Amino acid sequence: MPSGSGERPAWPIGLDGIAYGCDYNPEQWPAETVAEDVRLMGEAGVSFVTLAVFAWASLEVRPGVYDWGWLDAVMDALAAAGIAVDLATATAAPPPWFSHRYPDSLLVGPDGATRWYGSRQAFCPSSTDYRQAAGELTGAIAGRYGGHPALAMWHVGNEFGCHNPACYCDRSAESFRGWLRRRYQDDLGELNRAWGTSFWSQAYRSWEELIPPRQTVSFANPGHLLDWARFCSDELLGAYLAERSVLRRLTPGVPITTNFMSFFKPVDYQAWAREVDVVSNDHYLLGHLPRPEVHLSLSGDLTRGLAGGPWWLMEHSPSAVNWQRVNQAKAPGEMIRNSLTHVARGADAVGFFQWRASPFGAEKYHSAMVPHAGTDTMVWREVVDLGAKLRRLSEVAGSRVEADAALVFTWDSWWAAEGEAHPSSEVRVVENLGEWHRAFWEAAVTTDVVAPDADLSRYRLVVVPNLYLVSDAQADALAEFVRNGGHLLVTWFSGVVDADDHVRLGGYPGAFRDLLGVRTEEFFPLPHGVATALSDGSTGRRWSELGRSEGADVMVTFAAGPVAGSPALTRHRVGSGWAYYLATHLEGPDLDALVGRLVDESGTRRAAVVWPGVEAVRRVSGNVSYLFLINHTDEAQTVPASGIDLLSGATADGSITVGPGDVAVIRQPAAG
Amino acid sequence: MPSGSGERPAWPIGLDGIAYGCDYNPEQWPAETVAEDVRLMGEAGVSFVTLAVFAWASLEVRPGVYDWGWLDAVMDALAAAGIAVDLATATAAPPPWFSHRYPDSLLVGPDGATRWYGSRQAFCPSSTDYRQAAGELTGAIAGRYGGHPALAMWHVGNEFGCHNPACYCDRSAESFRGWLRRRYQDDLGELNRAWGTSFWSQAYRSWEELIPPRQTVSFANPGHLLDWARFCSDELLGAYLAERSVLRRLTPGVPITTNFMSFFKPVDYQAWAREVDVVSNDHYLLGHLPRPEVHLSLSGDLTRGLAGGPWWLMEHSPSAVNWQRVNQAKAPGEMIRNSLTHVARGADAVGFFQWRASPFGAEKYHSAMVPHAGTDTMVWREVVDLGAKLRRLSEVAGSRVEADAALVFTWDSWWAAEGEAHPSSEVRVVENLGEWHRAFWEAAVTTDVVAPDADLSRYRLVVVPNLYLVSDAQADALAEFVRNGGHLLVTWFSGVVDADDHVRLGGYPGAFRDLLGVRTEEFFPLPHGVATALSDGSTGRRWSELGRSEGADVMVTFAAGPVAGSPALTRHRVGSGWAYYLATHLEGPDLDALVGRLVDESGTRRAAVVWPGVEAVRRVSGNVSYLFLINHTDEAQTVPASGIDLLSGATADGSITVGPGDVAVIRQPAAG
Amino acid sequence: MPSGSGERPAWPIGLDGIAYGCDYNPEQWPAETVAEDVRLMGEAGVSFVTLAVFAWASLEVRPGVYDWGWLDAVMDALAAAGIAVDLATATAAPPPWFSHRYPDSLLVGPDGATRWYGSRQAFCPSSTDYRQAAGELTGAIAGRYGGHPALAMWHVGNEFGCHNPACYCDRSAESFRGWLRRRYQDDLGELNRAWGTSFWSQAYRSWEELIPPRQTVSFANPGHLLDWARFCSDELLGAYLAERSVLRRLTPGVPITTNFMSFFKPVDYQAWAREVDVVSNDHYLLGHLPRPEVHLSLSGDLTRGLAGGPWWLMEHSPSAVNWQRVNQAKAPGEMIRNSLTHVARGADAVGFFQWRASPFGAEKYHSAMVPHAGTDTMVWREVVDLGAKLRRLSEVAGSRVEADAALVFTWDSWWAAEGEAHPSSEVRVVENLGEWHRAFWEAAVTTDVVAPDADLSRYRLVVVPNLYLVSDAQADALAEFVRNGGHLLVTWFSGVVDADDHVRLGGYPGAFRDLLGVRTEEFFPLPHGVATALSDGSTGRRWSELGRSEGADVMVTFAAGPVAGSPALTRHRVGSGWAYYLATHLEGPDLDALVGRLVDESGTRRAAVVWPGVEAVRRVSGNVSYLFLINHTDEAQTVPASGIDLLSGATADGSITVGPGDVAVIRQPAAG
Repeated sequence: MPSGSGERPAWPIGLDGIAYGCDYNPEQWPAETVAEDVRLMGEAGVSFVTLAVFAWASLEVRPGVYDWGWLDAVMDALAAAGIAVDLATATAAPPPWFSHRYPDSLLVGPDGATRWYGSRQAFCPSSTDYRQAAGELTGAIAGRYGGHPALAMWHVGNEFGCHNPACYCDRSAESFRGWLRRRYQDDLGELNRAWGTSFWSQAYRSWEELIPPRQTVSFANPGHLLDWARFCSDELLGAYLAERSVLRRLTPGVPITTNFMSFFKPVDYQAWAREVDVVSNDHYLLGHLPRPEVHLSLSGDLTRGLAGGPWWLMEHSPSAVNWQRVNQAKAPGEMIRNSLTHVARGADAVGFFQWRASPFGAEKYHSAMVPHAGTDTMVWREVVDLGAKLRRLSEVAGSRVEADAALVFTWDSWWAAEGEAHPSSEVRVVENLGEWHRAFWEAAVTTDVVAPDADLSRYRLVVVPNLYLVSDAQADALAEFVRNGGHLLVTWFSGVVDADDHVRLGGYPGAFRDLLGVRTEEFFPLPHGVATALSDGSTGRRWSELGRSEGADVMVTFAAGPVAGSPALTRHRVGSGWAYYLATHLEGPDLDALVGRLVDESGTRRAAVVWPGVEAVRRVSGNVSYLFLINHTDEAQTVPASGIDLLSGATADGSITVGPGDVAVIRQPAAG
Repeated sequence: MPSGSGERPAWPIGLDGIAYGCDYNPEQWPAETVAEDVRLMGEAGVSFVTLAVFAWASLEVRPGVYDWGWLDAVMDALAAAGIAVDLATATAAPPPWFSHRYPDSLLVGPDGATRWYGSRQAFCPSSTDYRQAAGELTGAIAGRYGGHPALAMWHVGNEFGCHNPACYCDRSAESFRGWLRRRYQDDLGELNRAWGTSFWSQAYRSWEELIPPRQTVSFANPGHLLDWARFCSDELLGAYLAERSVLRRLTPGVPITTNFMSFFKPVDYQAWAREVDVVSNDHYLLGHLPRPEVHLSLSGDLTRGLAGGPWWLMEHSPSAVNWQRVNQAKAPGEMIRNSLTHVARGADAVGFFQWRASPFGAEKYHSAMVPHAGTDTMVWREVVDLGAKLRRLSEVAGSRVEADAALVFTWDSWWAAEGEAHPSSEVRVVENLGEWHRAFWEAAVTTDVVAPDADLSRYRLVVVPNLYLVSDAQADALAEFVRNGGHLLVTWFSGVVDADDHVRLGGYPGAFRDLLGVRTEEFFPLPHGVATALSDGSTGRRWSELGRSEGADVMVTFAAGPVAGSPALTRHRVGSGWAYYLATHLEGPDLDALVGRLVDESGTRRAAVVWPGVEAVRRVSGNVSYLFLINHTDEAQTVPASGIDLLSGATADGSITVGPGDVAVIRQPAAG
Repeated sequence: MPSGSGERPAWPIGLDGIAYGCDYNPEQWPAETVAEDVRLMGEAGVSFVTLAVFAWASLEVRPGVYDWGWLDAVMDALAAAGIAVDLATATAAPPPWFSHRYPDSLLVGPDGATRWYGSRQAFCPSSTDYRQAAGELTGAIAGRYGGHPALAMWHVGNEFGCHNPACYCDRSAESFRGWLRRRYQDDLGELNRAWGTSFWSQAYRSWEELIPPRQTVSFANPGHLLDWARFCSDELLGAYLAERSVLRRLTPGVPITTNFMSFFKPVDYQAWAREVDVVSNDHYLLGHLPRPEVHLSLSGDLTRGLAGGPWWLMEHSPSAVNWQRVNQAKAPGEMIRNSLTHVARGADAVGFFQWRASPFGAEKYHSAMVPHAGTDTMVWREVVDLGAKLRRLSEVAGSRVEADAALVFTWDSWWAAEGEAHPSSEVRVVENLGEWHRAFWEAAVTTDVVAPDADLSRYRLVVVPNLYLVSDAQADALAEFVRNGGHLLVTWFSGVVDADDHVRLGGYPGAFRDLLGVRTEEFFPLPHGVATALSDGSTGRRWSELGRSEGADVMVTFAAGPVAGSPALTRHRVGSGWAYYLATHLEGPDLDALVGRLVDESGTRRAAVVWPGVEAVRRVSGNVSYLFLINHTDEAQTVPASGIDLLSGATADGSITVGPGDVAVIRQPAAG
């Protein structure tokens, strides 16, 4: 069953099985629509709604003046229908009256220009006026609904930092200075050391001189930028914690969440995950990707890594979104496959944005469970079908996902690795991570995405792509994993800098030099579109290096160009494990081959033997396991498996055929 | 003869035939140049000049201190030469002394940054200081020259909004609030309803909270943006009307114009056209277009739609302009063809910018009738030749253009259709309109470009491309056209929203669902470069939909992909007419075939039977018609026609051969 | 021997042969590193360092409080090791305490937004606070080290204007007004005439109205922009001169330099070169260029043109830089070839940025002589090898470069030629100049890059590409060159405007019409990617014209399109010389053929007969010459030559074979 520890409130109150629901914004509709909504929710099997996310202006109609009537009615109607409420603190979008009254609460860009109200999230995360008002609203809502029978969970704010990740105003500068004083324990010399301010005459002589990295005429100090990124994530977290403290005080037993956004660069969810009772995530398909469904899986694997157990899919879209260049609708069956992929990868709740498509506003072309055209639509029929499917999967709730392999990723390394004035702008951390993930996906190997600080002993195989910044402790943890028998592969542009973004001198890849038994003296990044031949016939891209083995076996070398003969792939025996180094970027079949070898050598388990395009993931609970088989192809696919398909009710004996675009979830013994 | 009603002053005083002229800026030249100019104007047959457009600084040399001498001399010299003057109010570019004295009159961008003086149009359209000063200057000029024998027409400002279409300053905010109070009759609730401010917590509680849509962190409210677009057009119109009221008071009998700019998005010329005595237009070839001459024709057809009769081509270029990336000079004969195309499409005046090429300033590389190199030039020889040709066409003046077909277009639908956060950014209204226009052009069918509010009973065939926003009254007018026997074709992404930009619920294309007998449940826009096969072998682009017939005949369906089988082209019998719906974008031969069928079925007349690349347009006056044949090809082309070619004097008997790049204008009986 | 005149201090004190060194920033390292640095410098043969460029914050730790200790120690250690110091005034980057104390000293962009501190060069060039503080620091440094035995030269600021070329603040506006009053001798009418303010109502009525060309709604006045460019270069020069005057006063015998940046558009180095004792230059390879080594040679030829004799290469990179999109490391041998190319083209010093690669800061990925990986690296081994090679070339120091040909280039023509609202945006002055330079490079002909004001009598052949703006005196000088027997070729878009950027009326190319015997009536620029056939089979690009000969021989005509038959290449006999006009852009073999013909006809000497890809340059001193042969190919190349190769010590007798990527420097009789 879902996680829940002594320190944290339990899993959302009153929800069993796989929760199913959506964002619900009844304040945008006539009051009489609620009855119809509740009826249709019943038809679809909706068990929860997230309510009042953007309702500040509808609730606090003037400063301190509240209109609770409409929300009382909605809460009561939902309670009567047995629909649980993830109730928002309604602070995601201050109303015009607030911004007009407190113009200093508006966000200021690095260019010094104000970002005005008239959209959403129009506030500076450091604004004391905002925090004061948000805290009061949170208290008022918690006071009114803390004991309401519909209440299952609190939803603090919404997608923190989505549009206001960083503010450069004077108030933010003051907060930043406070954060720096705490980080450097009031020792300005330590800040100067960490930032390397002896470069370019940047030494700070008093705390007052410190400002956000506003626009400058040339490159900013990278230490300044890195601490700014850390501060911005922490400052948003501070805004979250301020509301949480109100809720904890007033309703200590009610669990609290806020919705994450997968690989959202400004917010370090590894730090945030420690502060929520339920990890919940929003995920939207990126239509321009060649295989958006694989990227979706990566998001699930990241969220599971954050949660360390079951998690909630808070939002995804029934069909098209509205914010991409061309917003592609989902093909028949695609939404159901998407939803079940999240479940396969650990989601115990499936939520949509949103219930009913708006006729107005900036999201009117975002798809919804009830489209503009009503219920006589493919979208609605699939919504109802999904509800039925999720009920058939109730027993899967609470099980864990089987993953023998992990991909290592941290936010501050991401921030640092993609800094300006670097060897190459072709370092795209998440894209590179995604290529590794894709190769594992094809191999039916599920990978957790975790920080090196996670418990690595669970894994047989760990891949560390572009972990540019790594602390000594993190490097030690990875070395320990190898010494204890693990298989580790580190790629190019890893271990280069320490936690202050200082290059580890003496040769790259600094922190991993001894572990890998290699020493690189110079980077030779490849321009976009330029490839380099390797000695085993594969092709390197984006990167090459001039280096040599210092103890490692050289398995592949660069075959041409200025670094011909230099190692491209090495293997080093350390303790009872193996440490591999890959000095270039591989992709496609070249990477598949390498992953296949690593999987086999390390004894990493595959969920199933599958045909290309079939996704296989296993969830396990006690003696039982659930094999998810998701067929993304246009052909029926047969997979060796035995057990009962929970979705169709059919029994597989040795093999199961999954129809084109279809999904099976087979209950098997856990040992299987 | 030219229009002119009881309420409006007559056609420019003292001009007969096709007027011929230019912008004339003698203040940039030594005084002695005027005599030479007038002599050369006589050689070219110039009958009018537009004078003093940018002369504010030369006339009002310091606040309230005027220097009339040079303009007196020019006016007198022109009068003596019989050249009519379209005299500017000289308010298009305030002088530095003005901007320096009234810095708040400068325009402020959505980013809050000031746009400074040193260019032109450096003023906020809402500036009271600007309006005050412009009104005083207008009065002074009208007072001095209102009775001058050279005066034929007033030219208010110049290309209103070309560079200053919207200002976001506090003064503009105040004007915007006033405009909103008038629009919503002081009912803030009505504004909140219209803008859908229950979305994203945007409800306004007092008028003071309302501001221009300044830069925000995410999408702005589309209702806010739409009303802002309406306000900006109206605010510029207000600046025009302020000057017009001065002129009407002082010189009630003198007609008034201001020059439009074809498809200029910020200004709703359909609203403006009601406020000018003479519709005049500026048109500049866009060199990057594959066939700029077809786009030129579209501009003419739009301007005629605005004017409802003859109109003035106020500006075009003798050869290259100066503001495109590479400014291509016109090939031999091209300028004459361009000029006569405007005449063919209803222009009774042909004007150039400008008379003499400047040696300095930001437009020194804009071509002129008298080039830098002087009169021993191809440009000058063609200028003289054109003057002679226009004299031969004198009798054409005042005739109307024969058009049995219309394309429907409105500014506020354009504004709304290309809003952000839409299903697709590939909706480009004027480009799509242009593709329809091109197909009609090839078929020798002239199309008026009109609002649905126009008198549609004149047409046999009306096409409505991407009329996204449509009021109930507009939708009714189009339905009435069909009921009365018209052929109407509506394309995808039409009728979707009402006049407030609210989606018409229940299925697309909302306003036209009953008329067309179709119901679309979901849009499936196609990414750039992706095509979809249709059941008749043609190819759809940009758009597809999932829908079904509700009474219409399905003629073509989508043949593949997620909406395979869904209707792509339907036809619905309504009253004595036919209503077609096209659910995707066609182009090239596929569209030509559809247009050909519609033309034939509806009995729409073609001006002639022509070879590709030959443009044919007919003007009609009483019993006589004038068939313009413009050969855009490099080969001589033979067209079946009889009558006298006014340009060559030759008589055609059954057929006429038009030389490569040449033009013929054949007088025929009107019935022809 | 190095230059040095009566007015100027001598060549850097105490340096003989080819100086070898680097930027040295010991303040970024622990004090104990200095001893190790000095030892390694000895190993590499370093003879000079540029010190303290970014040391302001390390020296003046608080306002008026200096910390000299560390610099004393470094200076003493260098003196002891016999390493000369090019000591910076340390004013390139004010410390945070300065910017925080004087916020008005920060630069303001054309958008009105402040550019903050936290990077480098964060100051307004017109800031009086900055100049005051910089002057005081300069005085303090000169006072302390003016007599130090290590001191060889002063290094004022650093790369003036690299990031702060123009500031638009009110203080800058005031300086600009002062500059204008001086330029126009307090005659506002003359300014109005020069700027052509009768255009677009821009006449200025008082000096107070004048402002920098801040952002406007449309095109700015080109006269305004041109004077602004001149002012900005002069204003930076003023900042340089302010420091120079302090140094001259305190240390009259010490030579002064500041490092130029080749074709850096904002700074007119032809004006600046007159104000430095030693012309020094920074050059960085642009990795995206197809042949960056040819562009490197162009930079050397420009710098030699500025210096009029030997010059210093102050900075280049041992391997990769850090500010390009992908920073390509140098292949084995490339750095040595690059360095010797600079020497071949007149450099008597070879400097690197920088000594030791930083572990932190925005330039940590800029390569250095001592890489992150230390001295067991290819970079370090090549650094040592280069030191040895330069010692073998000691006798070359002070010799002059043999150049019979010149390319004409001026900064203000560059500024004017690439202005907005021009016939074509495809006029890219330096790129076009570079194509001519490349053709001469292939022909082994060395070209000086000079202003027309230079002494042209030294040359047999002068090419004037795109000299758009030319004063009467400059045009006269070029005509005089022809009359005296020179061969001159002028290309398209030359001589069009006078020194005020006014078009010379009567036909293009205005200033050169009589000299060339041609008259162009209209430009027909070609869009990007469009070519035009010429009558001799070659291909024109970017440009064509409609014109005719007025006395010149027409050698080639345009063969097709609207200007078919118009001259493309003409030749005009004037005095005892020939004046060619080329009315289109040639490139590749077409241009090579034309250059070959011009070289042969004019009797211009080639340095050697070489195979493609082999660079040949000759330096001459008295009776001796040095033939540099630089093999940029991957094959050994044999060149006819006799003499001793200073680098290998081998003797060539009739021919020499230069290995792939290798260099030879052959001592020969000067007559050779």
